[in-house]
Amino acid sequence: MMMNLSCPLPQLDFDTINLGHGSGGTLTSQLLDAGVFNLFENDLLNKKHDGAIFTLNGKVAMSTDTYVVSPIFFEGGNIGDLAINGTVNDLAMCGAAAKYLTLGFVLEEGLKMTEFWEILLSIKTACQAAGVQIITGDTKVVEKGKGDKIFINTTGIGQVHAKADIDISNIKAGDQIILSGPLARHGITIVSHRQGLQFETTMSSDTRPLNDIILKLLDEFGHQIHFLRDPTRGGLATVLNEIAVQAQLGITIAEKNLPVEEEVQGACEMLGFDPLYVANEGLFIAVVDAAIAQQVLQQIKQWEFGSMASLIGEVTAEHPRQVIMKSKIGGRRVVNMLAGEQLPRIC
Amino acid sequence: MMMNLSCPLPQLDFDTINLGHGSGGTLTSQLLDAGVFNLFENDLLNKKHDGAIFTLNGKVAMSTDTYVVSPIFFEGGNIGDLAINGTVNDLAMCGAAAKYLTLGFVLEEGLKMTEFWEILLSIKTACQAAGVQIITGDTKVVEKGKGDKIFINTTGIGQVHAKADIDISNIKAGDQIILSGPLARHGITIVSHRQGLQFETTMSSDTRPLNDIILKLLDEFGHQIHFLRDPTRGGLATVLNEIAVQAQLGITIAEKNLPVEEEVQGACEMLGFDPLYVANEGLFIAVVDAAIAQQVLQQIKQWEFGSMASLIGEVTAEHPRQVIMKSKIGGRRVVNMLAGEQLPRIC
Repeated sequence: MMMNLSCPLPQLDFDTINLGHGSGGTLTSQLLDAGVFNLFENDLLNKKHDGAIFTLNGKVAMSTDTYVVSPIFFEGGNIGDLAINGTVNDLAMCGAAAKYLTLGFVLEEGLKMTEFWEILLSIKTACQAAGVQIITGDTKVVEKGKGDKIFINTTGIGQVHAKADIDISNIKAGDQIILSGPLARHGITIVSHRQGLQFETTMSSDTRPLNDIILKLLDEFGHQIHFLRDPTRGGLATVLNEIAVQAQLGITIAEKNLPVEEEVQGACEMLGFDPLYVANEGLFIAVVDAAIAQQVLQQIKQWEFGSMASLIGEVTAEHPRQVIMKSKIGGRRVVNMLAGEQLPRIC
Repeated sequence: MMMNLSCPLPQLDFDTINLGHGSGGTLTSQLLDAGVFNLFENDLLNKKHDGAIFTLNGKVAMSTDTYVVSPIFFEGGNIGDLAINGTVNDLAMCGAAAKYLTLGFVLEEGLKMTEFWEILLSIKTACQAAGVQIITGDTKVVEKGKGDKIFINTTGIGQVHAKADIDISNIKAGDQIILSGPLARHGITIVSHRQGLQFETTMSSDTRPLNDIILKLLDEFGHQIHFLRDPTRGGLATVLNEIAVQAQLGITIAEKNLPVEEEVQGACEMLGFDPLYVANEGLFIAVVDAAIAQQVLQQIKQWEFGSMASLIGEVTAEHPRQVIMKSKIGGRRVVNMLAGEQLPRIC
C-alpha cells in the first residue's frame, strides 16, 4: 500500500515519533519545520502564529471531523487524504467551496516517521486536488497504548456558493433523490483490508473531493437543489432516515435503482453486510426539484466518477419520518437507521 | 474533583460509551441528542447539518487545538473547559474575539457517561463565560486501549479587533514585554495531581478565557500592542525563544521580575522543574511599544487575575535570536528553548 514517495523524507535525527515531539519545544519545532511548514507553506501558515488571520466576506460554511480510520493505509487512500477529502466534502454538502483547513494531529509515541511522512504527502496532494490550503494546526503526542498511530482533525471553512440554498426545510414532497455513484466501496474496502481478504480485482476506497461537481451543479441549478448529503458513517439508510425525520416527510426508494458494483455486492454477501448501511466516502445524494431531476442526473453522469449515478427515489407526503424501499420483486419494507455498530473506525 | 452536577445526567439506557456511539446510527443520535444538541442548542447547531453556515465580514482569525490532557479532571478545571479556553485564548492572541467553535470528540470505549456529562457541562459553562457558541461537531469512538478516555479538538473563528495589528514583524528593539500573571500554575497542578502530591493549600490550574482583557487592551492601545502570545506548552522560555528567532531580535528578561507564587516555586523545586519551562494556561505575554508599557501593565493589574502582572523584559537589537536572563544575583545566562519533553500531555 505504500506509494513511492514523490518527495523524500527529510534527514532527521529520529525515525519514530516520541513524546518530546508534542512538548512544544525544540523537537516539536524540528518535526514541524521539516514535516509541516515546508511541505504546506503558504502566506498564512508561514506566520507560525497561534492562529491564522484572513479576510472573509459573506456567507461561509464551517465543518469539522476527526479521522480515526483503521488501518491508516488502505487501497485507494490513507487517513491523510481521507481527512482532507472528508472535510472538503462536508463543506460541499453545505454548498460551499472549501478554502482553508486547519490540521490537528494526535500521534502515538512510536509512529514511524516514514508513515507520518507518507500521510503528510497525501495531505499535500489532496489539498492541491481540492484547491485548499492548510493555514494553522496543532500536534500532540500521546504515550504508546494511549492512541492508535495517528488521529487527524481537519476543520474547514469556505464561501457558500452565491446560488446555493441547501437547507433541510427546502425539501418538499415530490422532490427527487439522486445518488452520485455506487454504494459501499469505502466501507467494504476497509473491512476487506482488515480481514485480509483478496478479491479478483482490487477494490479501492472511493475517497475523493466532491467540490468541483457540487459547484458545477450549483452554478447550473442553484436553489432548485434543495439538499445535499454524503452518506458516510451509517450509510445511505441512516442518512435518508435523518432527512425523513428532520424534514418530517417520507422517502421512498427503489431497490432496483441502487447502484452497487458486482464485486462489492459479492463482498457484502460474503461478509454479511447490507450495502445500504455501509459507509461511503466520495459519494453524495442530491434532493432536487422534480423539474430538474433528469438534467441533474445527466450532469452527474458526465462527471468523471458519475457513470453509475442513479435516480434512487423520491420524497413523499405519505409515511412521514419513514424510509420505504420497493424491493426488486415488488414488496415494500421499512428501511431503518443503522442500529448499533456495523463497522467501527471506518473514517 | 467531581463537581456537583448543576444539570442531571439525562436518562439513557447505557452508562458507558461503546463503539456503537461512533457508528453514525441510532446510538450516535441518542448520545448527541441527549448530550450535545440539547445542551449547546443554538440556531446554527440546531440544523444538525454536516457543517454550519453563517455570515462573517472582514478580518477573522481561525485557530485549532486538540486537547489530550491527562488526567482529564484536575484542580481548577477539566479537559472540557481547557478545550474551550485554550482555543478562545489562541484567537485572543491573534487579536480576535472568538465567536464560533467546532467540537470534535475522540472517545475511548468504556468512558463513563457521568464523566462525559461532567465534561459537557464544563464545556457549556466555559462557552457561556467566553461568549462563544458551539456550531458543529463530530464524535468518534475508538476501541478500549486505542485512546485514553477522551480527546477533544476545538477549532474557533472570530472577528479580529478593528484596532488590532498583532504580527511578529511589528516587534522592534525597545519594545517591552509584560507577563499577565504568575508562572507555572497549570503545569505544576497537573503534575502534582499525577504524582498524588498534596500541598498546604490547594494549587489549581489557571485555565480561564483571556478574551475580555485582551479586547480591553486593544480598545485602549490598538496598534501599539505589537504581539501577544500565551505561554502554554514549552512554557515562557520556549515562547520567548520563538519570538526572538522569528523576529530576528534579542530578548532580555530579569529573573527578579518573573512572578512565581511561593507554593508553585516550592513545588517546582521539589519536583525539579524550572518554572520558565512549565506550561501555563490563562496567562499571556504582551510585547508593546515602550511608550505605553506602564499603562498596559496598570490596565492588566486592574484585571481580576492580573494582580501579579509584571514587566519582565525587553526586546533588543543586541544578541539577535537569543533570550538572555539577568539573574537575581546579577549574572547573565542564555535561556534556551525547551529541549525534549518536560511534561507530556499537559493540555
